[in-house]
Order: sequence, then C-alpha cells, then structure tokens
Amino acid sequence: MADNNALDTLIQALRRLPGVGVKSAQRMAFHLLQHDREGALQMAQALTQAATQVKHCALCNTLTQAHICPTCSDESRDQTRLCVVETPADQYALERTGAFKGLYFVLMGKLSPLDGIGPKDIGLQKLFDRVAEGKVQEVILATNFTAEGEVTSHVISEELKVRQVHVTRLARGVPIGSELEYVDLGTIAHALVDRR
Amino acid sequence: MADNNALDTLIQALRRLPGVGVKSAQRMAFHLLQHDREGALQMAQALTQAATQVKHCALCNTLTQAHICPTCSDESRDQTRLCVVETPADQYALERTGAFKGLYFVLMGKLSPLDGIGPKDIGLQKLFDRVAEGKVQEVILATNFTAEGEVTSHVISEELKVRQVHVTRLARGVPIGSELEYVDLGTIAHALVDRR
Repeated sequence: MADNNALDTLIQALRRLPGVGVKSAQRMAFHLLQHDREGALQMAQALTQAATQVKHCALCNTLTQAHICPTCSDESRDQTRLCVVETPADQYALERTGAFKGLYFVLMGKLSPLDGIGPKDIGLQKLFDRVAEGKVQEVILATNFTAEGEVTSHVISEELKVRQVHVTRLARGVPIGSELEYVDLGTIAHALVDRR
Repeated sequence: MADNNALDTLIQALRRLPGVGVKSAQRMAFHLLQHDREGALQMAQALTQAATQVKHCALCNTLTQAHICPTCSDESRDQTRLCVVETPADQYALERTGAFKGLYFVLMGKLSPLDGIGPKDIGLQKLFDRVAEGKVQEVILATNFTAEGEVTSHVISEELKVRQVHVTRLARGVPIGSELEYVDLGTIAHALVDRR
C-alpha cells in the first residue's frame, strides 16, 4: 500500500476527529471504502455544508444556520431568564430536559487562566452588555462543575452583583468533576429546579 | 436547535462510521464546528477523493488508486507465494510485519452461509483461476481465526487439493476468536514462520 495517497490522506483526516486514533481511523476508512461509499460521499457533503453554512447566533453565540437561532427568535420563551452555558453541546443537553423555557447565552469556552484564556476570549462583555439592556431578570449559571467552569461562574456572578439582576447557579445535583453533556437528563432537570 | 439542518445532517452522517453512536457523533460535530472547520473541509475532500478514486486492484482486489496495486506490480516480490486474506486491513497488518515477501489475494469478505454469503459473493473463482495459471506454488491461507474465517480457509483448501499447489495455513500462534487486524506484529510474524 506504498502509494495509496487517497487512502492514507483519508486515514489522516479521520484522525482529526476527537477520540479517534490511528487504528480506529484505519477501521473507519476501510469500512467506508469496502461497505459504504455512498455514506462517505454523504458525509463529505454534510461536512462541507456544515463547515460553510453553520455560523454563530448573533444573540446567544450558539451554532446555527440563521442570523438569529430558532431558540432566540422563539417569542414564546421566557425573555427574562438567561441560562449561561459553556458550549452548544451543554445547551443541547439542557434543552432536552424540557425543564427550561428561557433563553441561552453560549460562552463557546470557559475561563482558563493557565491556558491564557481570559474574559475577552470567551466574549463575557457581550453577556454583560446583554444583561445591561435590562430585559433579563435572572441569569442562571450552568457552566460545568469543573475548576474552569466554577471560575467562569464566579467571575460572571461577581460582575453581575452590581447590576439589578438575580444570579443563580445550577443546584449541585450534578456530580462535581463531570461534564454536563454526559449527565443523565433527570439529574440535569433536578439541578435546574433546585438552582440557588 | 429545532431547524439546525446542516448540524443534524452532519451528526447523522457521522453515525455511519463504525463504532460511533449518537453521543460520539454529536461530540465530533461540535468539535469540528467549534475548533476545526479547516479539518472538516479537509475531511470532506479526503472522503470524496477516496470514495471516487480508490478502486480494487485487478489482480488481488485490494484497495488502490492504480489498475494494478503497488504490491502486485512489484517484480522483486516472490511470485510463487500467494497469501489469501479477508480484507485490506488484514493485508496491511501482515505487510507491516515485514515477514512476507510474496503476493496477496484479498477476498474482500468471508464465507458466511448464515448471512447468505457464498463462494460467488467473495469471488473465490477469481482466486482459483489465478492459481490455475500455474505460477503460484504455495497458497498461504491467512483468513481470520473465527468461525467464518476457518470455513473460508477450509473451502479454499478443499478446492485447491486437486491442483498442483501447496496449501498452508497461518500457524495457530494467533489466538482463536480474534481478528488479525488487531493482533500484535510479533505474533503475526511468528504465525507466518510456523505456517503448516
């Protein structure tokens, strides 16, 4: 298989997926080429489409194809409650619980001084400006219960203390050290109800 | 995320990869869109290129971009020995041991009567025709040591008994029930030397 460039290139490309090593990438490439070329072409199209068409919502930062995402433009949602999450995956997990009917603000990251990621890098000012508009009465901090997530929550709540806004944190029903995206729905729903 | 078609389509497409469930697919999609759009586009290109350009070698069936693969067209290899494997991945594993300098024949499958896969479906006739040409003096059966692999080997060796060809099987250094692709190189090399 010395000069099998297309195959080798595909294996290298698949390794960029999170959690995929060289053995898995080989297995995926061989599987697609032996059994599912149609799937490979569909995947190529889906990747191109998503990478070129999916943008960030102008209001909440989440991944969407629209200028304003469907959640933000849904007028039936409670405009006075704003839930702050780290990533679209976390938002997705919360949304699936069905326990929250307000709006979201997706940080697209978390404060991490050790990695040189400060308030400017995760766009905290945009959040503060949004709160300063006055519509939001409660900010629910739903960052992960990890060291960085806790720091992020702390910094946001310190900043918002001076404004006329109620700041709450997801109840600690969520086990410390775990990531929201992988917590079962019941636990997340419970933590939403018990927010403090 | 109600009408996030491009994102949902991407998650669905990624689920076609072997070993990728809905959580992993979400994680991959979010990772690519948040941190590695360039990687997503590269992957799309690699998938398209591989799916359209990679064909089967006219002689040995393996995946290649050429009409005849580099291994088959390498005249320095021993043309009298033919190693029969189930998949290109198995061939790749054998090749990496450096212990075999002959040619390969890739079945692209295995006999599986329960799934209705018979000799015609995996192109055994092409193998028999190749042997009938008379150049090959030894056929080394390196199908997996699973039930289907053993049946495949048995059928091939029964068919080749009547011809002037020496048929050997990889030594049972390879643990029964495991798949060649995942066996360590030393064990595979040993099994090649001890073939019976």
